[in-house]
Amino acid sequence: MGFKLARVCPYIESADLVVGENTCDGKKKAYEQFGRLKDTYVMDVPHVRNDDTRTQWRNEVKRLAARLEGLTGQKITADSLRAAIKLANDKRRALQRLDATRAADPVPISGLDCLLTVQAAFMDDSARLTGAINDMATECEKRVEDGVGVTPRGAKCILYTGTPMAVPNWRLFNIIEKAGGVVVGEECCTGSRYYKDLVPEDGETVDQMLDDIADRYLNIQCAIFTPNEGRKRDVIDMARRFRADGIIDCSLQFCTIYDMESTGMALAAREAGIPYMHLTTGYSNEDDGQLKTRVEAFLEMI
Amino acid sequence: MGFKLARVCPYIESADLVVGENTCDGKKKAYEQFGRLKDTYVMDVPHVRNDDTRTQWRNEVKRLAARLEGLTGQKITADSLRAAIKLANDKRRALQRLDATRAADPVPISGLDCLLTVQAAFMDDSARLTGAINDMATECEKRVEDGVGVTPRGAKCILYTGTPMAVPNWRLFNIIEKAGGVVVGEECCTGSRYYKDLVPEDGETVDQMLDDIADRYLNIQCAIFTPNEGRKRDVIDMARRFRADGIIDCSLQFCTIYDMESTGMALAAREAGIPYMHLTTGYSNEDDGQLKTRVEAFLEMI
Repeated sequence: MGFKLARVCPYIESADLVVGENTCDGKKKAYEQFGRLKDTYVMDVPHVRNDDTRTQWRNEVKRLAARLEGLTGQKITADSLRAAIKLANDKRRALQRLDATRAADPVPISGLDCLLTVQAAFMDDSARLTGAINDMATECEKRVEDGVGVTPRGAKCILYTGTPMAVPNWRLFNIIEKAGGVVVGEECCTGSRYYKDLVPEDGETVDQMLDDIADRYLNIQCAIFTPNEGRKRDVIDMARRFRADGIIDCSLQFCTIYDMESTGMALAAREAGIPYMHLTTGYSNEDDGQLKTRVEAFLEMI
Repeated sequence: MGFKLARVCPYIESADLVVGENTCDGKKKAYEQFGRLKDTYVMDVPHVRNDDTRTQWRNEVKRLAARLEGLTGQKITADSLRAAIKLANDKRRALQRLDATRAADPVPISGLDCLLTVQAAFMDDSARLTGAINDMATECEKRVEDGVGVTPRGAKCILYTGTPMAVPNWRLFNIIEKAGGVVVGEECCTGSRYYKDLVPEDGETVDQMLDDIADRYLNIQCAIFTPNEGRKRDVIDMARRFRADGIIDCSLQFCTIYDMESTGMALAAREAGIPYMHLTTGYSNEDDGQLKTRVEAFLEMI
């Protein structure tokens, strides 16, 4: 919304259509205002998972497909959709490969670089980006073999979870890694949720493949869903897989859903015996000092 | 949630089951925690109105009916449901009758008394309450005939819209009416939305009547819905019907949906040429002074 009001984002300005979604209250209501400034199409995302909402969501995805066909004048065919699914899966597979190297000690790549990689994956040409990520993965695999890391062996490993971090929001990762920690995983929408699940590549018809895409997205452990027990399970699994010494759960200010999930997340971490800290912050640098103090104290404690 | 933690609400303590709903993010996530303290059943409310979500919501209402049958061991029959629909409609009709008297000048009843009446209607025995409201309506109709009011003729009339006001939240109405204004209508869930629409009384089967109930509730102009143009239309219609001199739109702190709808509501009021003010406040008395100053200035200006 701010990008549009200030006209600073070339993607928004050059787009023929902006696609939004009713996820949280803030986005849902923001798109109503955004729609006054720009041609906007809003998808309705269900908040529980059952047979009714699955049907509703599959239809929602098909409505978007029809709208895109109308807008572009291009028909989605089984062949084109199958190729697109493979293209997106290849990107996910490359990210999974990079991801796997982060379990090594010393860690071959910083959390900040991985965050930036996923952020870029939202925007860049898929084939080009997949090639670049595979090159990075090859380099990281070599580093692991050679025992080369971005931090000394035994550096404190942090699993990040919480609100997504869109470009250019690198602040918290910067603070954690400058304080001597290293982020080894991101359980968030600009992290593992983006690449952990693939879409089946053996769909026969457009309808079936659109259903597969819909199902894959309905399975994301976003805090808009209720109940959202899968997120806790994913966080604990990832913390163990990447040998995290602690979990940092961060909500953006006014992000009700992540703020409120932190209560349950804290309990899940305590049960699993993993140190946990919840932070709330915004986009400005105002609280850099406070965040730094809290992160340093947390790293020292764990 | 606070009532439950402090155990101060006899209704919660004595209830066998608490029924919640996924309306806003705050409630959706609060019920996850609430469910840890008390047996809770959560209904999923759609946020857009289309054929898919109507089906989903009708099924949701039927699932609740089945749960209540299981809990109580009583079967819902066509006769019992038809009688219950009539009982609830009678209450709504009594409230509509009381409501109609508020268009008179001078206004026969204060907004505070009307607010309390609707708040009581959420809790009291329906038949007893309907009788009491009809008595109040008769008294108010007599007052209108006699030209008797709670304020002098020509007092500034305010239409309230915004977040619901649950017992014991009477603060803003108190401030408005002590400042010499009078609230003539409430476009909110503790106001006209509670009684303006009836459920059809000619349903033949339980299924049909449950669908009618579902449809009636899906038609409420709550800010969780998107788009929610109907709310603006209702507010302007009510402001005209009750000859309101101004609209006061109030959001509770952190109530994202009403806060964000105020942008569109302000535009709608401006287009209709009706003075409008948006306030944000909480449950505490801390900002009484500020609210008083703003309300007095608004009443003076209009």
